[in-house]
Amino acid sequence: MEYRIEKDTMGKVQVPANVYWGAQTQRSIMNFPIAQDINKMPKEIIKAFAYLKKAAAFANFDAGVLPEEKRNLIAQVCDEILEGKLDDQFPLVVWQTGSGTQSNMNCNEVIAYRAHVVNGGSLLDEQKFVHPNDDVNKSQSSNDTFPTAMHIAAYKILLEVTIPGIKTLRDTLDAKAKAFKDVVKIGRTHFMDATPLTLGQEFSGYVSQLDHGLRAINNTLAHLSELALGGTAVGTGINTPKGYDVNVAKHIADLTGLPFVTAENKFEALAAHDAIVEAHGALKTVAASLMKIGNDIRMLSSGPRSGIGEIYIPDNEPGSSIMPGKVNPTQCEAMTMVAAQVMGNDVAINIGGSMGHFELNVFKPVMIYNFLHSARLIGDVCVAFNDKCAVGIEPLHENIKKHVNNSLMLVTALNTKIGYYKAAEIAQTAHKNGSTLKETAIALGYLTAEEFDQWVKPENMVGEINV
Amino acid sequence: MEYRIEKDTMGKVQVPANVYWGAQTQRSIMNFPIAQDINKMPKEIIKAFAYLKKAAAFANFDAGVLPEEKRNLIAQVCDEILEGKLDDQFPLVVWQTGSGTQSNMNCNEVIAYRAHVVNGGSLLDEQKFVHPNDDVNKSQSSNDTFPTAMHIAAYKILLEVTIPGIKTLRDTLDAKAKAFKDVVKIGRTHFMDATPLTLGQEFSGYVSQLDHGLRAINNTLAHLSELALGGTAVGTGINTPKGYDVNVAKHIADLTGLPFVTAENKFEALAAHDAIVEAHGALKTVAASLMKIGNDIRMLSSGPRSGIGEIYIPDNEPGSSIMPGKVNPTQCEAMTMVAAQVMGNDVAINIGGSMGHFELNVFKPVMIYNFLHSARLIGDVCVAFNDKCAVGIEPLHENIKKHVNNSLMLVTALNTKIGYYKAAEIAQTAHKNGSTLKETAIALGYLTAEEFDQWVKPENMVGEINV
Amino acid sequence: MEYRIEKDTMGKVQVPANVYWGAQTQRSIMNFPIAQDINKMPKEIIKAFAYLKKAAAFANFDAGVLPEEKRNLIAQVCDEILEGKLDDQFPLVVWQTGSGTQSNMNCNEVIAYRAHVVNGGSLLDEQKFVHPNDDVNKSQSSNDTFPTAMHIAAYKILLEVTIPGIKTLRDTLDAKAKAFKDVVKIGRTHFMDATPLTLGQEFSGYVSQLDHGLRAINNTLAHLSELALGGTAVGTGINTPKGYDVNVAKHIADLTGLPFVTAENKFEALAAHDAIVEAHGALKTVAASLMKIGNDIRMLSSGPRSGIGEIYIPDNEPGSSIMPGKVNPTQCEAMTMVAAQVMGNDVAINIGGSMGHFELNVFKPVMIYNFLHSARLIGDVCVAFNDKCAVGIEPLHENIKKHVNNSLMLVTALNTKIGYYKAAEIAQTAHKNGSTLKETAIALGYLTAEEFDQWVKPENMVGEINV
Amino acid sequence: MEYRIEKDTMGKVQVPANVYWGAQTQRSIMNFPIAQDINKMPKEIIKAFAYLKKAAAFANFDAGVLPEEKRNLIAQVCDEILEGKLDDQFPLVVWQTGSGTQSNMNCNEVIAYRAHVVNGGSLLDEQKFVHPNDDVNKSQSSNDTFPTAMHIAAYKILLEVTIPGIKTLRDTLDAKAKAFKDVVKIGRTHFMDATPLTLGQEFSGYVSQLDHGLRAINNTLAHLSELALGGTAVGTGINTPKGYDVNVAKHIADLTGLPFVTAENKFEALAAHDAIVEAHGALKTVAASLMKIGNDIRMLSSGPRSGIGEIYIPDNEPGSSIMPGKVNPTQCEAMTMVAAQVMGNDVAINIGGSMGHFELNVFKPVMIYNFLHSARLIGDVCVAFNDKCAVGIEPLHENIKKHVNNSLMLVTALNTKIGYYKAAEIAQTAHKNGSTLKETAIALGYLTAEEFDQWVKPENMVGEINV
Repeated sequence: MEYRIEKDTMGKVQVPANVYWGAQTQRSIMNFPIAQDINKMPKEIIKAFAYLKKAAAFANFDAGVLPEEKRNLIAQVCDEILEGKLDDQFPLVVWQTGSGTQSNMNCNEVIAYRAHVVNGGSLLDEQKFVHPNDDVNKSQSSNDTFPTAMHIAAYKILLEVTIPGIKTLRDTLDAKAKAFKDVVKIGRTHFMDATPLTLGQEFSGYVSQLDHGLRAINNTLAHLSELALGGTAVGTGINTPKGYDVNVAKHIADLTGLPFVTAENKFEALAAHDAIVEAHGALKTVAASLMKIGNDIRMLSSGPRSGIGEIYIPDNEPGSSIMPGKVNPTQCEAMTMVAAQVMGNDVAINIGGSMGHFELNVFKPVMIYNFLHSARLIGDVCVAFNDKCAVGIEPLHENIKKHVNNSLMLVTALNTKIGYYKAAEIAQTAHKNGSTLKETAIALGYLTAEEFDQWVKPENMVGEINV
Repeated sequence: MEYRIEKDTMGKVQVPANVYWGAQTQRSIMNFPIAQDINKMPKEIIKAFAYLKKAAAFANFDAGVLPEEKRNLIAQVCDEILEGKLDDQFPLVVWQTGSGTQSNMNCNEVIAYRAHVVNGGSLLDEQKFVHPNDDVNKSQSSNDTFPTAMHIAAYKILLEVTIPGIKTLRDTLDAKAKAFKDVVKIGRTHFMDATPLTLGQEFSGYVSQLDHGLRAINNTLAHLSELALGGTAVGTGINTPKGYDVNVAKHIADLTGLPFVTAENKFEALAAHDAIVEAHGALKTVAASLMKIGNDIRMLSSGPRSGIGEIYIPDNEPGSSIMPGKVNPTQCEAMTMVAAQVMGNDVAINIGGSMGHFELNVFKPVMIYNFLHSARLIGDVCVAFNDKCAVGIEPLHENIKKHVNNSLMLVTALNTKIGYYKAAEIAQTAHKNGSTLKETAIALGYLTAEEFDQWVKPENMVGEINV
Repeated sequence: MEYRIEKDTMGKVQVPANVYWGAQTQRSIMNFPIAQDINKMPKEIIKAFAYLKKAAAFANFDAGVLPEEKRNLIAQVCDEILEGKLDDQFPLVVWQTGSGTQSNMNCNEVIAYRAHVVNGGSLLDEQKFVHPNDDVNKSQSSNDTFPTAMHIAAYKILLEVTIPGIKTLRDTLDAKAKAFKDVVKIGRTHFMDATPLTLGQEFSGYVSQLDHGLRAINNTLAHLSELALGGTAVGTGINTPKGYDVNVAKHIADLTGLPFVTAENKFEALAAHDAIVEAHGALKTVAASLMKIGNDIRMLSSGPRSGIGEIYIPDNEPGSSIMPGKVNPTQCEAMTMVAAQVMGNDVAINIGGSMGHFELNVFKPVMIYNFLHSARLIGDVCVAFNDKCAVGIEPLHENIKKHVNNSLMLVTALNTKIGYYKAAEIAQTAHKNGSTLKETAIALGYLTAEEFDQWVKPENMVGEINV
Repeated sequence: MEYRIEKDTMGKVQVPANVYWGAQTQRSIMNFPIAQDINKMPKEIIKAFAYLKKAAAFANFDAGVLPEEKRNLIAQVCDEILEGKLDDQFPLVVWQTGSGTQSNMNCNEVIAYRAHVVNGGSLLDEQKFVHPNDDVNKSQSSNDTFPTAMHIAAYKILLEVTIPGIKTLRDTLDAKAKAFKDVVKIGRTHFMDATPLTLGQEFSGYVSQLDHGLRAINNTLAHLSELALGGTAVGTGINTPKGYDVNVAKHIADLTGLPFVTAENKFEALAAHDAIVEAHGALKTVAASLMKIGNDIRMLSSGPRSGIGEIYIPDNEPGSSIMPGKVNPTQCEAMTMVAAQVMGNDVAINIGGSMGHFELNVFKPVMIYNFLHSARLIGDVCVAFNDKCAVGIEPLHENIKKHVNNSLMLVTALNTKIGYYKAAEIAQTAHKNGSTLKETAIALGYLTAEEFDQWVKPENMVGEINV
């Protein structure tokens, strides 16, 4: 490979000849050979940096500390990053310095050197027209840019991937709840036969879970909308122009179309990432919901002949390399695996979030890596589960009817007629004798056949059906 | 011990002669000999049951299905429970049935039998005037009462213990932030010397963390305010009078003075406990904050001679059984241990919350046990930390001054004067030679002594002080 | 209440007149009003301290630094503690100093003052014959006694509660595996019908899980057998006689009958508690096993009429306050709730274990609290589940036969006869038409009725039955 | 793109014309569009499959059920996979079916079709010479191959990456412990000044942690050495030749050079993954150790002027984009971030491991994904931390001396001379007055200057130095 020489405050470094990055990026590659093939800094963070570097250039220009020409060059390269044209210029991994300084410098270097080339210069020029620190990073520190990038990336992925994914699934389940609103089926509590409800009511519970989950996520957006930018090194805003913090947040809001504001307290915004901890708390709540829903769907569709078998789910692929004709609830499996992952990610985030020291939390990369992972997985798996499973769910009426009619728990309808104790005696006797509730009730002399038929109607035991 | 015989639908059971509980409570004692000395069902749940049983009696009376006399007897015993007069009548443990049925029945039995005695009856009477199932539990199931008790208990402890505890600490830290707002000190990022800030600014970050934590908790109250009561067995509300669910929630709101409402979707309210998962997500966020604050305070107060030593914290007790005169940051230790516990509790809650099946989640007791534990610990430890540590914190000015004046990072003030690279050269040279920034800067010829004195002033490097 | 005055190095403290504890215990009560009603320092730790204080008295006597009379007095009081006679003298909570110093001092004070009284003195004497620090704590520090108590308590509870509990359940499941070894039933993978196995084989998997779990626990005992005692303040063993560490461990081994030895490296033994982290890793593995077993048993026993219903489990109590005659798998629920708790406790322990600083980990109480909780819960719940559920499990042959005979996955037996693809065609066709495998196979012309009967026998599809 | 048509039991599928995979792989790509750019099935699993498919071909040949020609073709393609020649043929992600069936089929298809091409055939031939199910998957099921691949991959990465990485760091720390064995320094407990020890002793604690961690990992290898292969669909070994399970494990052992054996109980080996849960329990123990070590090193090296500053660590890169000349403990940060990740991964694994149902655990991919992630991260970060930090650690003697000589805790040496209480009085008085221990001790009249000098020598307070 061909190399060129780049310098930073520590000296010279050999860099591949035609990459846009410089000395500090190269040092990070050499110093952190840790899972480099699988744990690149998430692309969402790189794009978030592009937004903030562009916004900073504008805010610096507005404050009179950056010339228009440099502003425009920086903005142009940021746009290239946002368009994905420079994806291969960001080789660093999550497992670097805990402030993300090296990824900030990676951005500074790529923007500066690419701008220099755009401006007609050569990568071999020792002096570049745009300087990584003095121009691109002007009025900034890693300590306020990286948390700003975290919030931009987190907010965006929630709005663009997670929330729409959940909503898609929620809407399908809601349509199913309405479609199945009159399908009376057995209820199950403790995994045991219980009083009936409708399949639509059952599904309405899932919808309610996701509705509450969406609200939980939305509740956490306010904290995520606060940006650290302008706090610079320790939160005091050293080396920033007056009013810069408010203005740069406004530029970011304009560029992203999202309601970002400058954080009221920059010290918290650098030293802690409670906004990430809190927002991921909402994601883990959704994960718990998805685990529940995934388990229910796989159990309801179990069989086809020796299980519960009350719903049909689509056959998407052969299910076994040895058992011919087997079909499995694979979308449920992907979804529940995602739920397990999100709950694990939550712990990594909690630990990272709790271990800030003094003016800086240095678990930034691991926190945002896990956050983006969860947000992405939830969004993606909701869509996959929706498209390949939920939309195709149908009741299996034959099994549903058999189960509800067999159930001893229909006896509950008699509580208000003959009291809990006599009702229990009927159920227990029927269970022991393998007889039906009706014949047992009559045999015990507690009511007549007519009374039984009148009082014990599953369709009358499901309450008002509001789904 | 003397015994009497009680019966339930399964037959006769020997019960201690003079306890108010009956057959089902006794069966649970015998069937679940699991950590009985340390894991009683939390008293907050018992009290929540007292509220809801009283409210149910009123709502049943309102609906014309319970006579006034029974309503009043039930209400009277519930009041006794709330006053703590019957504390020893609730012997069951967390590790019972996952629906909490046995604790519901414990309440039903104690209320019914105590009511019978209040009404002039004897515990030895085979027929009691008030029946555990048919009267006390009327229009209810364990499946909707236990989750209702969970929400009442959770909401109340957050409002009565957790939030006030956090606020107490928050207010003290805020007062300290204001008191220390002009104490210029060294900042530390990556645990390394950085640019200065004031001690007040540092503390303002803690205040901001707790403010956001309080908001996070408040955001989760809405879901907790939804009550399952009226859903009965599977969410359909079987065996409840019309309008009962709305009315009973109103009664509970009146009795507790808290804004409880009936849950819009009862199926979710029985089958899932996402409200608990979500609200504990806020508690774990606060735990992360407390871990950060506790660590900072212990590190800032370290020494007294060979540490950082920038603040004084009160000496509360001898710190060592072998090292005479040693004093330790013990309140920080209790607080950070609590933080670890809460993060562990969060995982237990997530797992429990994710594993509902069909119409019922049967991890109710373990979920609320962990929730109440965390809520209590956070509230209590904030008060202890406040009273025994935070209120007594004072700056140690001598060390603070020494540290800030020694710091090489004051050089950052020169970035905008001479550029990042020359500033770095000054800092590195001073570090290598053990010299001061000033003498090094002059020796390198980058500025004059006068310029240095004018430009490098820690007190000018802390920005606008808004704490 | 009556009080007396006690003193420590910080001054005078009012203490209830007739308690044996002194000034430092009292300070801890006042300084840590945190969950005092529910989180007492576990009694196992107090007893472990009794062993080690007695052993230390002997080792100090052996080394010639403690007179025989004091040794005997200390030993006598330690025996009283072990007999439970002084249980009410240990009022402190988990949430104290992270080194457990205050519980160490609680023990020192109670032993010293009780010894003084045993020796004929009065609690009101200003000078006591036995001194908490200079005699009872001789050659010790909190920093080495508390971790020693942790290891003693952890090792003992594993041997006395956890392992026997697991073994009890394992043996019952093994007996069931053998009893059910010929009961051919349907297998289920992905919760879907699969090829058959015997019920005994299914249960043998649980036995294997527990066998491996027991081995996992045993593998961690070696690290737990290492005692920190003799390391004193920071691991150097300052103020200990020569050879004391080895000798005191020998005394502890003699007193407990367990193979304790002095830790090779005392610095690790004070500053880290990896032994606890590691051993709890084995407990969480067992928790995962119990969750699996508990889930399987509840699912296999589901119904009674509309579930899987392949096994009978004992009816222990009425299962519903509203549904008469309902019986639930309550022991499964207690067991799976315990599993969730243990997995949560694991995280608290991991966090505590990771956060030692320099020469001392100050998360000791929270770590051992969680460890003992898990060890106790697993042991207790295994016994309860065994006695009230496992021993009564019986196959429900009718359902078992129906399920296995209905299963389409018996077609797998044809793979080696007619190939995977044709076999799949048979299964899919039968599934679509609701027909039997046999009639479908013949109709498709792939084999004769005789061949089918000869090749497709569930009892030939279960391999060699080694359970 | 050009396509060809492939078929499976569900029908026809369009597949890119020149890939070796077939219909089922393609279905998985289409059905699981979940994080496809970042969560490919780990390459270690693909290679493990290559070992086991080759071993199965040999065992099938040995049993007389696979012709030599097919055996050799299969083996040849497996070797190509092991050499990395077919890396781009495995496009599937973690988030697929929970049994890993689709990755098994991906391997079956690629091996079969590539073998067909190697044998002179064309991808366009409808009939291929080697069949994915009937030949490559002969005597196998996904249900036993995927867990076998899990154990092979887990065992190999522990031996090849994790353990060597830890050992490298352990050896360096051990060399440092020996090199620094006489460097007397202040001890710190509760983050406060304590009695002295040597820097070598401090480091010996880290070595002991890693030694115990290595032992913990080694303890878990036995369970990992058990292979499920031969259990096929549900553990009964349906469709396998007699003796196949033992023989195929022997072949895998030969091919990998690792001591694999057939699992004694195949039901456990399919339905549970306790071996993974247990082994990761050891990894999380090491993570706790690394967090402790990383924290200590960063704190000991803090400053350079206003921290603890007792050790030098190498300057690897500029530490700040705004603070010139700043150097940070970045390797500590990467290491502690890894520790947080591993503790999070542990929870994902625990949840997955606990949720097997009946004969199959369907959280296989998420479990092994997290396991391999942790194993890799620990191994890699230990090497990076070793090479870029640990090897360069040196004591900063000036600070070390200043700190130890200032410490009030040297007074502990006087306990055995003048008693704990007088010693405490000296320390407290000196602290209050800002005076030295010596002048205070003399002023209080408790000892002479000569006695002080004789008794209070830090170098005599560090015990026997065995590092």
